[in-house]
Amino acid sequence: MLHPFQSGLTLLFERRPGPGFALELRLPLGAAHDPAGQEGTAAVLEEWLHKGAGNLDARALADAFDDLGLRRGGSVTHESTRFSVSGLRSDFPRALTLLADVVRRPHLQDGELTSVLDLARQDLESLADSPADQLAVRLRELAFARPYAHPVSGTLAGIAAITPETARAFHSRYGSRGAALAVVGDFEEQVVHDLVTVHFGDWQGGGQELPAVIFQGDFVRHQPDDSQQTHINVLFRSPGPTEPGWLAFHVALGALAGGSASRLFEEVREKRGLAYSVGASVHVTGRDGFVWAYAGSTPGRAAQTLDVLLNEFARLRQGVTSEEFERARTQLLAATVFAAETARGRASALTRDWLTLGAVRALGEVRRDLEALTLADVNELLAERPFERPAVMSLGQGAVLRNGAHALA
Amino acid sequence: MLHPFQSGLTLLFERRPGPGFALELRLPLGAAHDPAGQEGTAAVLEEWLHKGAGNLDARALADAFDDLGLRRGGSVTHESTRFSVSGLRSDFPRALTLLADVVRRPHLQDGELTSVLDLARQDLESLADSPADQLAVRLRELAFARPYAHPVSGTLAGIAAITPETARAFHSRYGSRGAALAVVGDFEEQVVHDLVTVHFGDWQGGGQELPAVIFQGDFVRHQPDDSQQTHINVLFRSPGPTEPGWLAFHVALGALAGGSASRLFEEVREKRGLAYSVGASVHVTGRDGFVWAYAGSTPGRAAQTLDVLLNEFARLRQGVTSEEFERARTQLLAATVFAAETARGRASALTRDWLTLGAVRALGEVRRDLEALTLADVNELLAERPFERPAVMSLGQGAVLRNGAHALA
Repeated sequence: MLHPFQSGLTLLFERRPGPGFALELRLPLGAAHDPAGQEGTAAVLEEWLHKGAGNLDARALADAFDDLGLRRGGSVTHESTRFSVSGLRSDFPRALTLLADVVRRPHLQDGELTSVLDLARQDLESLADSPADQLAVRLRELAFARPYAHPVSGTLAGIAAITPETARAFHSRYGSRGAALAVVGDFEEQVVHDLVTVHFGDWQGGGQELPAVIFQGDFVRHQPDDSQQTHINVLFRSPGPTEPGWLAFHVALGALAGGSASRLFEEVREKRGLAYSVGASVHVTGRDGFVWAYAGSTPGRAAQTLDVLLNEFARLRQGVTSEEFERARTQLLAATVFAAETARGRASALTRDWLTLGAVRALGEVRRDLEALTLADVNELLAERPFERPAVMSLGQGAVLRNGAHALA
Repeated sequence: MLHPFQSGLTLLFERRPGPGFALELRLPLGAAHDPAGQEGTAAVLEEWLHKGAGNLDARALADAFDDLGLRRGGSVTHESTRFSVSGLRSDFPRALTLLADVVRRPHLQDGELTSVLDLARQDLESLADSPADQLAVRLRELAFARPYAHPVSGTLAGIAAITPETARAFHSRYGSRGAALAVVGDFEEQVVHDLVTVHFGDWQGGGQELPAVIFQGDFVRHQPDDSQQTHINVLFRSPGPTEPGWLAFHVALGALAGGSASRLFEEVREKRGLAYSVGASVHVTGRDGFVWAYAGSTPGRAAQTLDVLLNEFARLRQGVTSEEFERARTQLLAATVFAAETARGRASALTRDWLTLGAVRALGEVRRDLEALTLADVNELLAERPFERPAVMSLGQGAVLRNGAHALA
């Protein structure tokens, strides 16, 4: 059931049997909307919201969730902020009340912000202990223009510049327009609709536009680091989620990087033992699609690893085989089934699809779309949209990427 | 349904509706059975098994799983080796055939072992890039005697000493005695039983004893490291899974470390901002129980963080409040429901309970046990079995644990 409220909020309800329920609220406001100079605001606010709301102070609010064994989750991407709660069926009304308190009636007291900012800073500083994460942050910074250049967790300067006033101003941009609330559980449709009306029927505001993405690939950088492994990232443009080639692209990516029969796993890891971990996955940034490949190699093998990685992307232009096509399609179908197995997973897919595509899809529709796809669809896409001009970066000991740079030229 | 075969294998079947199935085979043979001097054998063998089996070479075997969109998983602990496959219902017979091939008819060719060993070595070397993992490995080494002193992934010397012959000898210890095979899906009981009989009915051998655990706590060590964060680990003995206090202990641990209303989260993170991440969880080693607490702090705050951590364990002796008891009990119940939500999660819980407890429990039984538990049960346990003589270790810049050592003395 899909119910659009006058206010611009859309209720997405899916009934399913079982003792548990899940709900998720997703707002079209994220780190891409962080005020310039206060990078990290969206993420910090999401934490601050939980420090007291409605008639509950921070401790009482934490207790209220924990008393019912409710799991609350929240996360911020560049595009959206997401709040999820799951629990046992009888606690759904209480969960919805708590969610409305957190999102609409947070206390946002100055004193609580201090510790939230302090922890956000510690989190950023701990990046220094993870070379792989450091590399991803640095590559993003080089490849994307504002407001997609900073990580969701912000920057040290940005965190330092956030004040109670600036963070409260950001909260005033929360609202109903463009937001989606998914409910998955064994309830009567009317009951869900009425409860949501009570808590969110009079919600207003919201409706932020997503800034355009400016991506600048076509470079190779190396950052010296005394890490044991040499980490490699390669970032290409791909079709985006609203483009017709989106599904065909996922099938192609499956052939490239899906599972132990995939080209990357086979060529990089199995045949040559160049890297323990290697893979590639889709990243939606703004409304655009990207494929982000990574490998964890060694200083002596990094150059060859990059060559093989880039070569596999180039080779996709010639298409995939019919065996690869069938396999990747079957895997996608199975993955879709598994992702919907938990109420929480399904609720999250519903709000994601609504914000990204403006539509939700039943499992049966995804299956039909996949079955309608042909090998020719995939190979035409790969011929027409070759992977070109990537952003390439490595981090590790020595300047090892000379070969890689040649392969790229 | 629980069906014991003559051979010592136990089939655990649970019927549930849905498009997917999961199966998991768990053998009572793990890293604790690694031959001395060849630490890492169990983990290396589990990888090697997938390099060709039955009438399929390595590539064809990977393709066979991927063609059906089957997810295969495997993992080794000190106590057991676990193989899991999940997929769409109609592919269950094929999945069972493939599993039997991998476990009973692997090719184990010399040539394939070379790359498996090479990757295992790379994996161990990449530990150097993760201070938190390094600390856990070092603490294990100091706190446990053989054969629990080495990590499941082995040691560099151990990996170097593994040969095709020694790894094949380890495979000859695989067998039916003490093993459990769980099947969760929408099948007729008789169909499952007959299929399992075809593939595993004539399986023999197995039946390894689990070595006793020798734990030596009562020490504080610091390992200098130039990591940004100071990582702290504290390891205590706890009740074990077959002891009567096991469930009460989990409730107490919930009050200490379960969620954002827990004592550790509140005292370490929220009130004092000492560490971004802090927590504690149960680890079963051999047949014994342990609680492993950790915090990621900073050089300047590490000493106080450790003091607070140790103080919270000491304070448990005075018991938990009735609010904490109710909350932790509710959380445990919800966690149990969520864990069983996926077929894969349920299959894994079934084989784990069978190997650990010699019994499986329906969700309703767990609920009844939890409901029968009283605050007095928990507080009597905490008074009788205080947390004492922990193994304490930190890793980071400077020798920061002097205060901590005092608190411990």
